[in-house]
Amino acid sequence: MEKGLMVVVSGPAGSGKGTVNGHLLKRDDFVYSVSATTRAPRPQEIDGVNYHFISREDFLSRIASGDMLEYTEYCGNFYGTPLKEAIEVLESGKNLILEIEVEGAHNVKAKYPDAILIMLLPPSFAVQEQRLRGRGTETEEKVLARLERTKEELSVVKDYDYVVYNHDGKDIEAAEEILAILKAERASIRRNPSVKENYFA
Amino acid sequence: MEKGLMVVVSGPAGSGKGTVNGHLLKRDDFVYSVSATTRAPRPQEIDGVNYHFISREDFLSRIASGDMLEYTEYCGNFYGTPLKEAIEVLESGKNLILEIEVEGAHNVKAKYPDAILIMLLPPSFAVQEQRLRGRGTETEEKVLARLERTKEELSVVKDYDYVVYNHDGKDIEAAEEILAILKAERASIRRNPSVKENYFA
Repeated sequence: MEKGLMVVVSGPAGSGKGTVNGHLLKRDDFVYSVSATTRAPRPQEIDGVNYHFISREDFLSRIASGDMLEYTEYCGNFYGTPLKEAIEVLESGKNLILEIEVEGAHNVKAKYPDAILIMLLPPSFAVQEQRLRGRGTETEEKVLARLERTKEELSVVKDYDYVVYNHDGKDIEAAEEILAILKAERASIRRNPSVKENYFA
Repeated sequence: MEKGLMVVVSGPAGSGKGTVNGHLLKRDDFVYSVSATTRAPRPQEIDGVNYHFISREDFLSRIASGDMLEYTEYCGNFYGTPLKEAIEVLESGKNLILEIEVEGAHNVKAKYPDAILIMLLPPSFAVQEQRLRGRGTETEEKVLARLERTKEELSVVKDYDYVVYNHDGKDIEAAEEILAILKAERASIRRNPSVKENYFA
């Protein structure tokens, strides 16, 4: 069986990561990588679905044993991707989606160079700002912090393999673009080193 | 306007290049690169459509003036791709399909590194042989020569960017795979060096 692909999707607040990844996850060949975190669950968040909620002590011990593909500390909490589960999904032939921050993405690529790094973006900073304010659910301070954070995120976009724009009302098209990327990656010579041998076999 | 992509499609006899490229060329965003050649036209071949039929003298003079993106001599005749026309197509925003031999493909990539090199293959050597014999239009000697030539073609497959398999009755799927490859290439960071600048513009 062909191994699944590890797909890292990052994107600033307002990029629509959750919606676009949701389209992919409706397919039975995609699995969402559930991160481990030390932060407290929010109302309606389910352990093992939204996150594996674990203690700080447990998290640090997993880092020490090499069982974190990537991890980061953000606002005083740890977030990370358990390695063993990721490998199991790929070996089962399914693609694994990691919805993670830019720092984590960089570390994934370093530890697992076959990972495909995709940056999902709103069409422009102006549209992003409209979207964040349009939500009406966050304080002005929080909105400004998210917009400021976007500058950091864009400053490492060159470390990514692909950039996909999520235009208003076009989230299905963005998901299709990600599917096209995976199709192309599967056809790349880099991922098919034994073309000649297989052809004459 | 976004520039078109230069797409080189090579493939051994029996790979179905003509059929697969035909599907792409039904779209109005694809143009077929008409090669120049010094060989005599076959019955039903039209000058400017199948080839630009030109004299040996003319061909050599175009090589000398740098107006050949690639050229090769095969069975005593020259075949080549005029550079100026290729650039004009790309500047018009259309994708240009070059259906050329492996030697030519290598030279195109050297002169125009943005070219995307795709090797179209039958599912296996055994299927290729069936297809060639199934045609019933060629001498045994010719069939054997084509099969022998395939070994040379596969020996440089690593110089290509992608390999696409054309399974029996799945030529539309092969064309769709090529479309996915072009979509992915357009989304690649390599082809989008100014993501950050454009985002905040």
